[in-house]
Amino acid sequence: MDIEELRLNVIHCGLPLALEIVGDRWTFLILRAATVGLCHFEQFQSQLGIARNILANRLAKMVQRGLLERQECDGDRRRVRYTLTDKGEALFPALVALRQWGERWESDTPSDPVLVDRRDRKPIREMSIIAADGREVKLRELTLVTRAEFDQS
Amino acid sequence: MDIEELRLNVIHCGLPLALEIVGDRWTFLILRAATVGLCHFEQFQSQLGIARNILANRLAKMVQRGLLERQECDGDRRRVRYTLTDKGEALFPALVALRQWGERWESDTPSDPVLVDRRDRKPIREMSIIAADGREVKLRELTLVTRAEFDQS
Repeated sequence: MDIEELRLNVIHCGLPLALEIVGDRWTFLILRAATVGLCHFEQFQSQLGIARNILANRLAKMVQRGLLERQECDGDRRRVRYTLTDKGEALFPALVALRQWGERWESDTPSDPVLVDRRDRKPIREMSIIAADGREVKLRELTLVTRAEFDQS
Repeated sequence: MDIEELRLNVIHCGLPLALEIVGDRWTFLILRAATVGLCHFEQFQSQLGIARNILANRLAKMVQRGLLERQECDGDRRRVRYTLTDKGEALFPALVALRQWGERWESDTPSDPVLVDRRDRKPIREMSIIAADGREVKLRELTLVTRAEFDQS
């Protein structure tokens, strides 16, 4: 398909939708903190060094958008827990892909801590695009087809 | 490792570094446009509907940060081409992961166009975390170990 067609189709791409929801630096960093098990306001605040009003705003938005679930805990003096929903956890591959890119291209020291498989303590692989037949593919090995073309084939 | 240790180690994670470079909605959308072959200022401008001054600013930053290469083309009336560097192309897995997430969780229509393998015209797989032994792993199957622990093992 040519570039002019692509322009017409931009509205059906998930990327702008995703960026609408998570296209904010703090949202990514709060998600990362949630993936390692942080769940209380004070924990996010001290880990991220984020201003309290900004953190409160982001947490409320993330709950509203379905990334985090807010639970009141009666027995706990800190009372409120924020935990990842399935939708929030589904952002983990995107988070890891960005993290690996930052390590590879922007950092001169290897990441610490290291994300490893619980089973064998080996680090996960580099994120890559996998074709239907299981092989890793690069951008130049891919192409775009319209939904109509695709449905016909 | 416990949560307090993690806080000390936040500086060695690639995610904040990556967000420093690409943590901007327009940067992602320009990158996506570049992955489908757009390369001229006017093409980005008309595809994205972005204000000219903002586009000029983002393109300059992306060149400065090594995501795009700027080439003058003598024979072409539009003269300047912006193409992805290896560093820019290396963001493709992160872009695809975000796009798929947006499609899955935020869109009620399937993506159009569809990203397919040139070889067999089949769509790529869902992005997922792959362990060293090749199996797909979920967040709960992973853990963090300090670099020191990891190097000893």
